[in-house]
Amino acid sequence: MTKTLKGIAASDGIAVAPAYLLVEPDLSFSKTNVSDVESEVARYKDAISVSTAEVEKIRDDAKQSLGEEEAQVFEAHLMILNDPEFTGAIENEIKEQKINSEAALDETAQKFISIFEGMTDNAYMQQRAADVRDVSKRIMAHLLGKELPNPAAIDHEVVVVAHDLTPSDTAQLNKQFVKGFVTDIGGRTAHSAIMARSLELPAVVGTDSITKDVQNGDTLVVDGLSGDAVIDPSKEQISDYQQKSDIFLKQKAEWQKLKYEPSVTADGKKFTIAANIGTPNDMAGVNENGAEAVGLYRTEFLYMDSKDFPTEDAQYDAYKKVIEGMHGKQVIIRTMDIGGDKHLDYWDLPDEMNPFLGVRAIRLSLQNEEIFRTQLRALLRASAYGSLGIMFPMIGTLNELRKAKSILNEEKDQLTSQGVSVGSDLQVGMMIEVPAAAVLADQFAKEVDFFSIGTNDLIQYSMAADRGNDNVSYLYQPANPAVLRLIKNTIDAAHDNGIWCGMCGEAAGDSTMFPILLAMGLDEYSMSATSILRIRSLMKKLDTNEIKELANQACFESKTAEENEKLVSDLMAKVDK
Amino acid sequence: MTKTLKGIAASDGIAVAPAYLLVEPDLSFSKTNVSDVESEVARYKDAISVSTAEVEKIRDDAKQSLGEEEAQVFEAHLMILNDPEFTGAIENEIKEQKINSEAALDETAQKFISIFEGMTDNAYMQQRAADVRDVSKRIMAHLLGKELPNPAAIDHEVVVVAHDLTPSDTAQLNKQFVKGFVTDIGGRTAHSAIMARSLELPAVVGTDSITKDVQNGDTLVVDGLSGDAVIDPSKEQISDYQQKSDIFLKQKAEWQKLKYEPSVTADGKKFTIAANIGTPNDMAGVNENGAEAVGLYRTEFLYMDSKDFPTEDAQYDAYKKVIEGMHGKQVIIRTMDIGGDKHLDYWDLPDEMNPFLGVRAIRLSLQNEEIFRTQLRALLRASAYGSLGIMFPMIGTLNELRKAKSILNEEKDQLTSQGVSVGSDLQVGMMIEVPAAAVLADQFAKEVDFFSIGTNDLIQYSMAADRGNDNVSYLYQPANPAVLRLIKNTIDAAHDNGIWCGMCGEAAGDSTMFPILLAMGLDEYSMSATSILRIRSLMKKLDTNEIKELANQACFESKTAEENEKLVSDLMAKVDK
Repeated sequence: MTKTLKGIAASDGIAVAPAYLLVEPDLSFSKTNVSDVESEVARYKDAISVSTAEVEKIRDDAKQSLGEEEAQVFEAHLMILNDPEFTGAIENEIKEQKINSEAALDETAQKFISIFEGMTDNAYMQQRAADVRDVSKRIMAHLLGKELPNPAAIDHEVVVVAHDLTPSDTAQLNKQFVKGFVTDIGGRTAHSAIMARSLELPAVVGTDSITKDVQNGDTLVVDGLSGDAVIDPSKEQISDYQQKSDIFLKQKAEWQKLKYEPSVTADGKKFTIAANIGTPNDMAGVNENGAEAVGLYRTEFLYMDSKDFPTEDAQYDAYKKVIEGMHGKQVIIRTMDIGGDKHLDYWDLPDEMNPFLGVRAIRLSLQNEEIFRTQLRALLRASAYGSLGIMFPMIGTLNELRKAKSILNEEKDQLTSQGVSVGSDLQVGMMIEVPAAAVLADQFAKEVDFFSIGTNDLIQYSMAADRGNDNVSYLYQPANPAVLRLIKNTIDAAHDNGIWCGMCGEAAGDSTMFPILLAMGLDEYSMSATSILRIRSLMKKLDTNEIKELANQACFESKTAEENEKLVSDLMAKVDK
Repeated sequence: MTKTLKGIAASDGIAVAPAYLLVEPDLSFSKTNVSDVESEVARYKDAISVSTAEVEKIRDDAKQSLGEEEAQVFEAHLMILNDPEFTGAIENEIKEQKINSEAALDETAQKFISIFEGMTDNAYMQQRAADVRDVSKRIMAHLLGKELPNPAAIDHEVVVVAHDLTPSDTAQLNKQFVKGFVTDIGGRTAHSAIMARSLELPAVVGTDSITKDVQNGDTLVVDGLSGDAVIDPSKEQISDYQQKSDIFLKQKAEWQKLKYEPSVTADGKKFTIAANIGTPNDMAGVNENGAEAVGLYRTEFLYMDSKDFPTEDAQYDAYKKVIEGMHGKQVIIRTMDIGGDKHLDYWDLPDEMNPFLGVRAIRLSLQNEEIFRTQLRALLRASAYGSLGIMFPMIGTLNELRKAKSILNEEKDQLTSQGVSVGSDLQVGMMIEVPAAAVLADQFAKEVDFFSIGTNDLIQYSMAADRGNDNVSYLYQPANPAVLRLIKNTIDAAHDNGIWCGMCGEAAGDSTMFPILLAMGLDEYSMSATSILRIRSLMKKLDTNEIKELANQACFESKTAEENEKLVSDLMAKVDK
């Protein structure tokens, strides 16, 4: 029977394909006594050998479809399946306690996991705990006659359905066959949503119950425009969605025509639409979508994708590649934002009670100056190859900004004195994402070349609501008048002091926020490359004279985010007419 | 040799007494093989019986000095010492593996702790893990011939020295003999600092190294006025400190004279100085220190000190007691601020990655309406006995405020229709502690009777820095111009809309912040009762005409917290001359 779930539209587009559930089956069991111990041991050994054969196949498939590195984890699983300390302990449990294999497996695995997890200061042992958990799950599934999902083996077009999609889940997906995502939890800024947008796949997140409502193989529509997920659609619905998809694709094609056009409003005012990137590999998408700048290069991925701190030369190569790839257009590179929810295997930082309120980004850089100086030298050397802006994240006080700038200047002087050339139009800027910085923007504006507003963090701190915590997601309100006042204060302070102001948070590419930001006179809009042409097309429709009042209305007349959403939808109804 | 450590002055006053180290000795050991297993087992059993006798004595002492409830934990320790599953497992390890008792104890204890801690959803088992850890420490100390601190047995005047003081440490202290505290870590808002102020004990926190620098019995000066801790002071120093202490005590006696005086400035302007309380037991201190109101009653302690949700009647009794105790002066009662760092044993809430940015305070109340309604009914019933203000914590949006008010009104209407009387001058207000609320204060002011600024949280969120995290404590800056602008915006918005504005965070009782707040025209200053007379005396010295410019200077001319601290110290130098 047809059923429609309402979720959050997380990535544009529409897809129709069979559902593939990336969900674990129920592996609960009862502990029982067994009288025929021999045949129980045989049953257990069967499960081990079937599991081993299965993991070997998954490993081989993964090597082929995903590469050597992604397949590594399965080698670790095979080692556990072949480890007599583990498998023998389970066999002994069965024999000595005369209990069923499921109970013996569970008790033994719990013991191993407890011990490994107890070694909290050892990342290697933590990983072993995760491996034991994964392997035990597989053996348990075979004992219970259940099937575990095996995303690496997907060989036909599917819509992936999951409770949530973690980075390690997505690493195992064969992206050739995945046509869209639907998840139970998450919002527009969740990992799964960001990934869907960068892969240009339609996605609906936060449906609450999709994993319970859909079965493997059920036909599933993902409508990433409206946020609907339709299970078992009728023939009419399928054809309606096909039509809607055609319109969307036509619109996308229209947008494509704007690829080499400048970003201008209906009344001919020029602004900059830029792209956010995570690695030099993203440059293809940047140019394909007609970005006029790179507004944010998140350098933390350079550290996260590495087995040790990236060397100065490795960083220099990456930065140079991006700068050269833009052929003179500006590239804003943000110094590393490690800490918070981003950790490095090779950097053992203290656990924090509230990591988002802890030592992250510039705080970590200033407390580890040598690591910071290495990055700054790499940036300065790369600056000779184009137009670079260096940006400091999470600046909260003028003292932090001054300290970061003085370290940068020391490194610059040293390089220059060594005859190394540094870009002549290098700019130095800061993120506005700590509320105190937004409030004091007039003072900060006197000491930098530009601002870039990081709405994801600015909203999270202003509303005191973790953007990753579903139970407070109702407070993540980009259009809240308080948030808009902080944004307006920042833009006004920049302009009063003769500097430019950009935005690199999700809000810059949000169709509801965009008209308000344009009314405020924001100079640069930096977003996922795949959003650029949609926003350029929207900009073309808007006349800055006609929307002038919107900024003050949204900040000072409206009382809630809902009122502002209505203001914009009323405006767009008029514009589209 | 004399050594002076610089720390943070956390509680006024000066004390000189022998140091008492509340610090664990080094319990590291080497794992060795033993040949004479019998005598090793005998050595192990000795340690068990000495430990048992010791815990019995501590329990008896604790019962006498601290009461039955505080002694309970030691009963749990005795149960573990008598548990053959635990002690027998260690003995077996020694015999079977032929290893020394230390190694056998450590391995067995780790295993038990891992298993208990693995049961993360069970608060009882978590407590058992802590108990096993404590008992093992004690046995280990006896095996190694080391001594564990036993705070319950202190029988002479001491200055307690600790890395940090947790609530459970302080529960075991015999307060009769404790003359002051010095700790390695913590700031003015740490538990140890707040407790020291409420006990009127001098305290210096955040010295970094006091536990390493001082030995048990060394003479130690705590100067809670300057933040100095002096180890092995010279005779001259002791006499200097005695003199300084005399001056302080004389000043305190002077302050005492202001107990029945109104709170007025040098030019005769009247303001309100109020007290913050946690339980009805704090009312004695409130009246002894001449509070003109209770500006904040933190009701979460009522929940935290209880074994289950307090009933409506139990709450009603507590609220009524406080309201009656103020004889018509206003009492502001804040609805529960559970969540964040405050948890209830009997309420299993989901773990959060960033609890300070999670479901706490009003968010939790609105998601658990029945618990909230019970509290509101108790408050409404108690309001008949005096002048009550009900205050909602952590309001971030107008929708939250409206929802809370509508629930309150529903309960009020229902009580009234049942003939229950409700106070006629009941006020309804909100905390300003979420930055978004401070920014949008003009809109909120139209929908409440009063504001109370919670600086501890407002600063933590505005600066995006966990106030409990030592590594970002440099960002906890009450005098930061950004924080001051948010405070000024709140006060101005209140006055523009005809409502009053108070402050119940630590900043209200801070001598540096006070002149700035007074210049801004803050109406009510609510603080630890022990700070009231100091602030009343300071108020008497200040002329609002002379300090008028201070508010704008501090908000709009200064760029850093340091500049504002200097502004105030220059002002006070002139005033005191």
